[in-house]
Amino acid sequence: MPTAAVVLSGCGFLDGSEIHESVGCLVHLARHGIEARCFSPDAAQADVVNHATGKTIDQMRNCLVESARIARGRIALLSELRVNAFDGVVFPGGYGAAKNLCTFASDGPTCTVAPEVERVVRDFHSAGKPLAMCCIAPVIAARVLGTAGGCSVTIGDDPATAAAIEKMGARHHPTSVTEAFSDNANRLVTTGAYMFDASPWDVFQGVGAMIDRFAAWLAPR
Amino acid sequence: MPTAAVVLSGCGFLDGSEIHESVGCLVHLARHGIEARCFSPDAAQADVVNHATGKTIDQMRNCLVESARIARGRIALLSELRVNAFDGVVFPGGYGAAKNLCTFASDGPTCTVAPEVERVVRDFHSAGKPLAMCCIAPVIAARVLGTAGGCSVTIGDDPATAAAIEKMGARHHPTSVTEAFSDNANRLVTTGAYMFDASPWDVFQGVGAMIDRFAAWLAPR
Repeated sequence: MPTAAVVLSGCGFLDGSEIHESVGCLVHLARHGIEARCFSPDAAQADVVNHATGKTIDQMRNCLVESARIARGRIALLSELRVNAFDGVVFPGGYGAAKNLCTFASDGPTCTVAPEVERVVRDFHSAGKPLAMCCIAPVIAARVLGTAGGCSVTIGDDPATAAAIEKMGARHHPTSVTEAFSDNANRLVTTGAYMFDASPWDVFQGVGAMIDRFAAWLAPR
Repeated sequence: MPTAAVVLSGCGFLDGSEIHESVGCLVHLARHGIEARCFSPDAAQADVVNHATGKTIDQMRNCLVESARIARGRIALLSELRVNAFDGVVFPGGYGAAKNLCTFASDGPTCTVAPEVERVVRDFHSAGKPLAMCCIAPVIAARVLGTAGGCSVTIGDDPATAAAIEKMGARHHPTSVTEAFSDNANRLVTTGAYMFDASPWDVFQGVGAMIDRFAAWLAPR
């Protein structure tokens, strides 16, 4: 049975992993018979947002503890994720990917990627193992791989984010919400997901297209 | 466009709504072109559980504020849910359904259903509008409708919960994880979901079968 690591960063689109995208990844991986294991940094979230009001609240929450809600308790430390134990890695989106895994939300194209996140991206990429990223998460690939040979991603069709991606040395390809974009040379597949103001069903289909491509790379050749 | 109210009770299977089931409901409703609106009680959760350890933590979280994470911010007060504004109502599961919407988790068949939850169930049922409930949520229907004419539900195949349901005056029908059970007389459809130790894909299919039936009741006749 092929295995995939899923990297979460909290639970909720405004301060953690986008929930619909994360569940979509887990459902589609299971549909392909791929065993998923969830990982998260053991670190404080950059902030905690009341999702009913959109306002930041004065509280501390831990990325791993909150991610465990999506993972139904089966969660491990990102620092313990080893490339040789998995066939590929998946990054759902949400502001957590741009606040907790890197600093793109505040720093844009000059953002810093958390060292353990950068290590995971580099390790899977160097091993020729596939990476799937959706919504805003592709900025992590752009930042880590953009200057080192480059890569091609989609975040949908948002011009400002696309420009930031190009500034980091990566290429951006516009796509619709139900499509995924495949950078075959880098075994990197991306989809825009909730970068669009889309329905849960549209996003689910786009995440499905992404995981379909990811699964095809994992299939025995 | 038909509309459905989705009743949430937090965000995470140990102290709120089960996340995969809730997202599955939203995805399948959108697939059927049904507009979903999420509601939650504006009340403190019965408890807050660290999902990485399974242990209760000393913190207060509000059902509506946490449910907003699943609803991506679009959430309304359950007390404001009016039956004439919706074509049907959906209850995902998770311990939140058995701790925050009723007291089944602690009181079993003698549980109390929160008054605003009981009102919603009675109003939709009386109006002949469909109800869909998954995982442990069917105990709410059993408690509210069990003695008043009865109803038939499934929570999968768990014998203890099935016995409790029968004790409340309802009938229980065992089903597999990918099936839903339809009580046509009451327009009540249920599925076991994570009452099974199942994969996200299996649960997604069972929730899909439940929403398929729900949607068929909403289709123009």
